[in-house]
Amino acid sequence: MTKKILILPGDGIGPEIVAEAVKLLDCLRADFGLAVETETALVGGAAYDDCGLPLPESTLDLAKSADAVLLGAVGGPKWEPLEIALRPEKGLLGLRAGLGLFANLRPAILYPQLAEASTLKPEVVAGLDIMIVRELTGGIYFGQPRGVETLASGERRGINTLVYTESEIERICRVAFDTAMRRNRRLCSVDKANVLECTELWREVAIRVGRDYPEVELSHMYVDNAAMQLVRAPKQFDVMVTTNMFGDILSDAAAMLTGSIGMLPSASLNAENQGMYEPIHGSAPDIAGQGVANPLATILSVAMMLRYSLSAPEHADRIEQAVSKVLNQGLRTGDIAAPGTTAVGTAAMGDAVLEAI
Amino acid sequence: MTKKILILPGDGIGPEIVAEAVKLLDCLRADFGLAVETETALVGGAAYDDCGLPLPESTLDLAKSADAVLLGAVGGPKWEPLEIALRPEKGLLGLRAGLGLFANLRPAILYPQLAEASTLKPEVVAGLDIMIVRELTGGIYFGQPRGVETLASGERRGINTLVYTESEIERICRVAFDTAMRRNRRLCSVDKANVLECTELWREVAIRVGRDYPEVELSHMYVDNAAMQLVRAPKQFDVMVTTNMFGDILSDAAAMLTGSIGMLPSASLNAENQGMYEPIHGSAPDIAGQGVANPLATILSVAMMLRYSLSAPEHADRIEQAVSKVLNQGLRTGDIAAPGTTAVGTAAMGDAVLEAI
Ligand SMILES: CC(C)[C@H](C(=O)O)[C@@H](O)C(=O)O
Ligand SMILES: CC(C)[C@H](C(=O)O)[C@@H](O)C(=O)O
Repeated sequence: MTKKILILPGDGIGPEIVAEAVKLLDCLRADFGLAVETETALVGGAAYDDCGLPLPESTLDLAKSADAVLLGAVGGPKWEPLEIALRPEKGLLGLRAGLGLFANLRPAILYPQLAEASTLKPEVVAGLDIMIVRELTGGIYFGQPRGVETLASGERRGINTLVYTESEIERICRVAFDTAMRRNRRLCSVDKANVLECTELWREVAIRVGRDYPEVELSHMYVDNAAMQLVRAPKQFDVMVTTNMFGDILSDAAAMLTGSIGMLPSASLNAENQGMYEPIHGSAPDIAGQGVANPLATILSVAMMLRYSLSAPEHADRIEQAVSKVLNQGLRTGDIAAPGTTAVGTAAMGDAVLEAI
Repeated sequence: MTKKILILPGDGIGPEIVAEAVKLLDCLRADFGLAVETETALVGGAAYDDCGLPLPESTLDLAKSADAVLLGAVGGPKWEPLEIALRPEKGLLGLRAGLGLFANLRPAILYPQLAEASTLKPEVVAGLDIMIVRELTGGIYFGQPRGVETLASGERRGINTLVYTESEIERICRVAFDTAMRRNRRLCSVDKANVLECTELWREVAIRVGRDYPEVELSHMYVDNAAMQLVRAPKQFDVMVTTNMFGDILSDAAAMLTGSIGMLPSASLNAENQGMYEPIHGSAPDIAGQGVANPLATILSVAMMLRYSLSAPEHADRIEQAVSKVLNQGLRTGDIAAPGTTAVGTAAMGDAVLEAI
């Protein structure tokens, strides 16, 4: 059966990098019999410019009826003056909520060919391979009440609410334990249980779910310590699971340990394994339109999509091997440039991956 | 006039490291005419064991009447099964709230003698000198409502509230701008204004306060990006200002960039410059009682105390120079050990600083 993929280029470098992923999908369809069809829609600042909303209903409907969504990136300084409800980011958050994508999988992998790109000493990060499982549709990102209110004194007060139910915690923990079972069977749950009651409940539920996974070694870490340990000795981690906000911060820190965030994909899944896939880097407005952005994180996001949502792991392997090959050939976009390698632009990098496939 | 210092050894390695700081204060008093008197009290797990409360009223009263407080560290696995309200950490939070210590200054400084200790490449961290100004008596640490409630369905739900008034944001921003004026006049305010309305207000107020400091270059960064940038290029920062929770995470990450958290002091100040001073490292229960902990962060906390709360900067300089001298002599506790240096324990390190003074 033909699977439907919704393509959301988004803002900044989004359209350029997504174009390379689309070329790749076309090639897999034409030459390797991958049964997919694609459709394209607007989201983020691009959608706001078009119709005044960062997530038009038509886009959300298309996303709901697709088997998977490929997103470039959203946001940019152009839309920063807008109120939060109209910002490009709201388009992304609306997709996550609308599709129920509660499980965000963010690998932080150091490609051996790019070991030099890290700001950390080689012995600290060589072979790094962490999977961060971030809760994505709850917590302080979505909690009510929220907003800015004016007190009787005339002074204003800003409020957001961190809230998790047991079932929300349970389902993300199950994803994390399942992920750990497929990897090295070590799971670190990150909380601030010594201060925040909400994450005290988080820890309690993590322990309870852990009883169903006796083979997984469960540990707990306070978020401040986790931030330290990622810098001190990141290879101690296999899988980490945490809240929406902590996951936002820690997954970016973990990604940067590799020195090559232009290489890192991500998956956001719902209970039916329907998913949205996107590079972890942002829309990089400073280099948008120049044809120099690294398309590999988006291309690797397609690989994750094939593996998690389209049940086509053989195509995923194919892509990952092709990416490894172009790195071995010494091809590099600007963000991962190094002495002795060959500088290429976005399209040339995409072409090289097609070639390698 | 004789100044009063309250000494709170706390838990774990707290008593050992604080003992070295007390020796130092005694020496400054006896040999250099520093007019201070000290008193000692219980806090944290030690206080809980003694009277069932992590912050006895008598301790808080003594703290209020002191000019400054020196704290070792609190917490340990022994007290983790306790409910949040009775945990050692609550003693610390109670002191912060009770004394109104809203401004937490956390320097992340790389000592040139310890450059090798960092997990980052030398060129990335050489000369690192960041000051993180963390809001300490508001935000999600103290916001109401909080707790775990049971829903009609029987399911439980955990809640914490992130809340800041304009005046709370304003006063911490003023401390940060003042700090920047005494340094390199660059201030980065860290928020999540693209998602959290509370921190949108934070950004607005930071901009407004900035108008009073035209000489300070103010920038804004989302917290996830800040976590990345600390790993990628930490020397881009001079002073950072942020919320209680973000500051907890980022200051620990920044500290770990130096590779020697056993060296880093901190100050927590109220509007009258009354302050609590403590090493940023924890109570390290695994090495407690062995006489191997590094007392230098506590000793440097005394230097901060002399500078910020006791108006005795000449004594602060004296201590900092003495610490530099013992490092130059090659003395190292276990946490900062390196080939070719001389291993010493807690007391020997404290003695060496006295000697150097
Ligand atoms: C753009 C922003 C809303 C988003 C988030 O905070 O979740 C981004 O930082 C991410 O991590 O995907
Ligand atoms: C012990 C804990 C309550 C405390 C905090 O979270 O503030 C500590 O991590 C710190 O940073 O001083």
